[in-house]
Amino acid sequence: MLRVARRLPRYATRSTQHETRNMSDKKYVIGIDFGTESGRALLVEVATGREIAVAVHPYANGVIDEKLPGTDIRLEPDWALQDPNDYLEVLKHAVPAVLQQSGVDPADVIGVAADFTACTILPTTRDGTPLCFLPEYRNRPHAWVKLWKHHAAQPEANKLNQIAAREGYDFLPRYGGKISSEWFVPKVWQMLDEDPEIYAAADRIIEAADWIVWQMTGVEKRNLTTAGYKSIWSKRHGFPPKAFFRALDPRLENLVDEKMTRDIYGFGTKAGELTSQAAAWMGLRPGTAVAIGNADAHAAVPAAGVSEAGRMVIIMGTSNCHMLLSEDDRIVPGMCGCVEDGIIPGFFGYEAGQACVGDHFAWFMETCAPASYTQEAAAMGVSLHDLFEAKAAALKPGESGLVALDWWNGNRSVLVDVDLTGAIVGMTLATKPEEIYRALIEATAFGTRVIIEAFEASNVAVHEIVASGGLPDRNRLLMQIYADVTGRPIKVAGTKQGGAFGSAMHAAVAAGEAAGGYATIQEATRAMAWLRDEQYTPNPAAKAIYDELFAEYKQLHDYFGRGGNDVMKRLKALKVRVLKD
Amino acid sequence: MLRVARRLPRYATRSTQHETRNMSDKKYVIGIDFGTESGRALLVEVATGREIAVAVHPYANGVIDEKLPGTDIRLEPDWALQDPNDYLEVLKHAVPAVLQQSGVDPADVIGVAADFTACTILPTTRDGTPLCFLPEYRNRPHAWVKLWKHHAAQPEANKLNQIAAREGYDFLPRYGGKISSEWFVPKVWQMLDEDPEIYAAADRIIEAADWIVWQMTGVEKRNLTTAGYKSIWSKRHGFPPKAFFRALDPRLENLVDEKMTRDIYGFGTKAGELTSQAAAWMGLRPGTAVAIGNADAHAAVPAAGVSEAGRMVIIMGTSNCHMLLSEDDRIVPGMCGCVEDGIIPGFFGYEAGQACVGDHFAWFMETCAPASYTQEAAAMGVSLHDLFEAKAAALKPGESGLVALDWWNGNRSVLVDVDLTGAIVGMTLATKPEEIYRALIEATAFGTRVIIEAFEASNVAVHEIVASGGLPDRNRLLMQIYADVTGRPIKVAGTKQGGAFGSAMHAAVAAGEAAGGYATIQEATRAMAWLRDEQYTPNPAAKAIYDELFAEYKQLHDYFGRGGNDVMKRLKALKVRVLKD
Repeated sequence: MLRVARRLPRYATRSTQHETRNMSDKKYVIGIDFGTESGRALLVEVATGREIAVAVHPYANGVIDEKLPGTDIRLEPDWALQDPNDYLEVLKHAVPAVLQQSGVDPADVIGVAADFTACTILPTTRDGTPLCFLPEYRNRPHAWVKLWKHHAAQPEANKLNQIAAREGYDFLPRYGGKISSEWFVPKVWQMLDEDPEIYAAADRIIEAADWIVWQMTGVEKRNLTTAGYKSIWSKRHGFPPKAFFRALDPRLENLVDEKMTRDIYGFGTKAGELTSQAAAWMGLRPGTAVAIGNADAHAAVPAAGVSEAGRMVIIMGTSNCHMLLSEDDRIVPGMCGCVEDGIIPGFFGYEAGQACVGDHFAWFMETCAPASYTQEAAAMGVSLHDLFEAKAAALKPGESGLVALDWWNGNRSVLVDVDLTGAIVGMTLATKPEEIYRALIEATAFGTRVIIEAFEASNVAVHEIVASGGLPDRNRLLMQIYADVTGRPIKVAGTKQGGAFGSAMHAAVAAGEAAGGYATIQEATRAMAWLRDEQYTPNPAAKAIYDELFAEYKQLHDYFGRGGNDVMKRLKALKVRVLKD
Repeated sequence: MLRVARRLPRYATRSTQHETRNMSDKKYVIGIDFGTESGRALLVEVATGREIAVAVHPYANGVIDEKLPGTDIRLEPDWALQDPNDYLEVLKHAVPAVLQQSGVDPADVIGVAADFTACTILPTTRDGTPLCFLPEYRNRPHAWVKLWKHHAAQPEANKLNQIAAREGYDFLPRYGGKISSEWFVPKVWQMLDEDPEIYAAADRIIEAADWIVWQMTGVEKRNLTTAGYKSIWSKRHGFPPKAFFRALDPRLENLVDEKMTRDIYGFGTKAGELTSQAAAWMGLRPGTAVAIGNADAHAAVPAAGVSEAGRMVIIMGTSNCHMLLSEDDRIVPGMCGCVEDGIIPGFFGYEAGQACVGDHFAWFMETCAPASYTQEAAAMGVSLHDLFEAKAAALKPGESGLVALDWWNGNRSVLVDVDLTGAIVGMTLATKPEEIYRALIEATAFGTRVIIEAFEASNVAVHEIVASGGLPDRNRLLMQIYADVTGRPIKVAGTKQGGAFGSAMHAAVAAGEAAGGYATIQEATRAMAWLRDEQYTPNPAAKAIYDELFAEYKQLHDYFGRGGNDVMKRLKALKVRVLKD
């Protein structure tokens, strides 16, 4: 069922078109992607998008979720911190490493950009020094970086949503009706609630994406993407009014003006230039252009060759992020956010998500793969994943007799409900493990189809899908099922480093045309981004069967997800209750 | 939570009370249980119920479901035949074996009785010779024994149920609204449909339980239990009228009078005496009393010490059979059958069932137990079942956050719907294998509670449960969960050979008081049957949690099982359709 498409003409000569230039003509950019466990630097040729060198530097303190480093201070459940020094170490090690690997002259590196997990924030002094670097605050958990997956601000998020809904603030619909506990204001509010001294000591509270740019350039400039998606900011309305913050807590009334800023910079803007100190850390020339920061999923969109409306980029990994551009500002129920210029200037950028995709299959392999399959895989010398993919690929759509709801980690879009859980229907004594595995893959594809249909119902078109991230490479069966279930062709981003590659493109735009970069992200996309030769084309016969199965999925989705039977919430509440007793 | 009850007084001296008698005073009976794969003979002391010797003889041809023995004739899917010669071999080997093991004098064996799987039937000549013994019919599948689990008569069963419902025959409610494809009339009708010559050649069509009694005694006498539960006969109404059989097929009009009989004999009746030939096969004395035949699950009821109303016997194995006595004739929706005198004379005997219990756990172990657990069990030197039982026992009720519908093999009672399938709701990324395992056990317990509540809603009381069969011995967690879920104390039958022991009791009644046996089954029960010391007592706190979970189960049960959402049937139909393409 897999079709290999011819390479698109504009990429046809990508890797060879500049071969005749002199070495010294070539210009390079470096994208730095700050992930959850490590940072990676990617050195890319500006003219062609060719990836020259990559280096990964793990964070020494990783995700801090048990004890504060160097202390016996235990963290509560749901906490997840990081050490900002680990980010500086990435600059000091990963960047020099790609220069060394490639032999590129630092003089030919025209720009640098960083993307970050978000919302990942930290409190600093006025000069940008993290409070956790100061001896007097080093033992205070709230002085450290709160990582995106720090979930301990749920009480604050709940109160915030109640207040916003009660007072009728119009920003809620832009965020699917709910502000997440992962985002800026709940995290700050938790800091104020639990350690007001740290809140008072924090001259600045800032996204790590903007902090790392500050460290490179010496100037604090904040990016539009995280402001829009994580800090309730919009180009037209700015931040919520002071009255809103006052309603949360009177001490928060002036949060924006005291500890943040109303100056927000959009994509491709040059934030500044490398300071001598940062240049020395990184082995680059002082004065090298540095772009405004970005969020990782958002950076991955142009890296997947998308800078126009109608092509959805799905970043597929442990979870799915669905990124989509539109010329129109629509309220699409159940999205994570819609931000003007938030992904590509000139477009409304929509983000939706599924909370459990790669994690789903990892859970299955660990929890449900029987010993006989593990032995079979070992005997064949293949991974368990490969064995399951091969067995599941031999099944026809509909053959398993199963349908599942992919809510093992709640539902992000379109139901926006963390208390939903998973379900499988249709097992018999003849049901085989690979049938369950395939049903889980299909369930995540149905979840994506629900999101696409929500966009289209709000007149935001989705013509085609471009897949990015780790999964497309590893699971061709999954890609074909997504094509068949959604009825849309799926292309695959060329780069395996969506975030870092997107940052490299940002760097080329920030450097500008005169320096050998590009004037716009569209130009950078045309020149640098590329897609794989392979394309997954919907099989009409499979699509017809999946239309039937999707109708079953949708009926169960609405029954369990929209109040027909709140059994999932009751079971979860019961579990919490009996564990307390 | 497990309470050890004191031994009931009437059993207190069971094993010693007759120790002072002379050896020659002792009388014995032999029960022979014909199962699916083998037959077993059990020699029991009449006065005490002490099990003296047991011997198992496997059927050489086992379950015939691929090829007719000695030929290349392939059987269709869903066929399941047996060779009646295998039954004779059990008489010739297992019975002499118990005599030899025990050293008991055949003169001291006062009676013999057999119980059989049912509905298991065969066509014979007028003298009882199986048609498959005759060379001219040996290559004809319909000439062989159709085993209880022969499921190829489903089209005939469907037509029968349509006709019976359309014409308003009043027997349907006695059988939960449906005659099963496993039963007598659909199986005979299939024979007529597919091989009318065999149907014509069959002077007699008879339950194997009655055929084996015929072989032992030389007289054809048919038993009330299989007539009532499998052949649509009742004490008050006899068989359905000829018009009904004519409506099925004109050639069936005289089925009862031509190939069956209207003379039906109840429990404990002496069918006859061993012929010289049968006595020679078995190593017993000619003239030894032989009881009327019986069905295995029904024989197990007095073997569990139950010969009165209000105590439900659950025979727990691959599936569950629920047997219950009542003084009243009630229509209980969704039962497998209600037969006057069908289990114990003087009572209406009710049978209900769950199609998937031990099979459920076997499926789980084979399909879902991860390699790490298999390794852990091996390292601890315990079975995988034991490991799962220990891990699941460490969980509290409600802790898993899961609820399942136990319909992996359809639903027998109370929905009577083979097209229902399994479901699990509530999985998260933290869900562990033992939580799924425990949820499956709980689901079967909830299924039993649905059956108990159906009885009680129809004013048929269930005060207490007595468990029999293979599972109670092997899984104490399961027993405790059943007690907690049903809110009823559970006792455990002393014998591990429910069918054979019940047959031995039948033999003692057939032999009669004068010969050293018993006048009634109640007397035999008091003297011979016994219960284990252990008793499972409901834990009120667990019961309270299970009341909540049962409410969830019931809501899902009714949603998926009573037309709220027929997704299970549609998925099954889709599976059949795509596999045909």
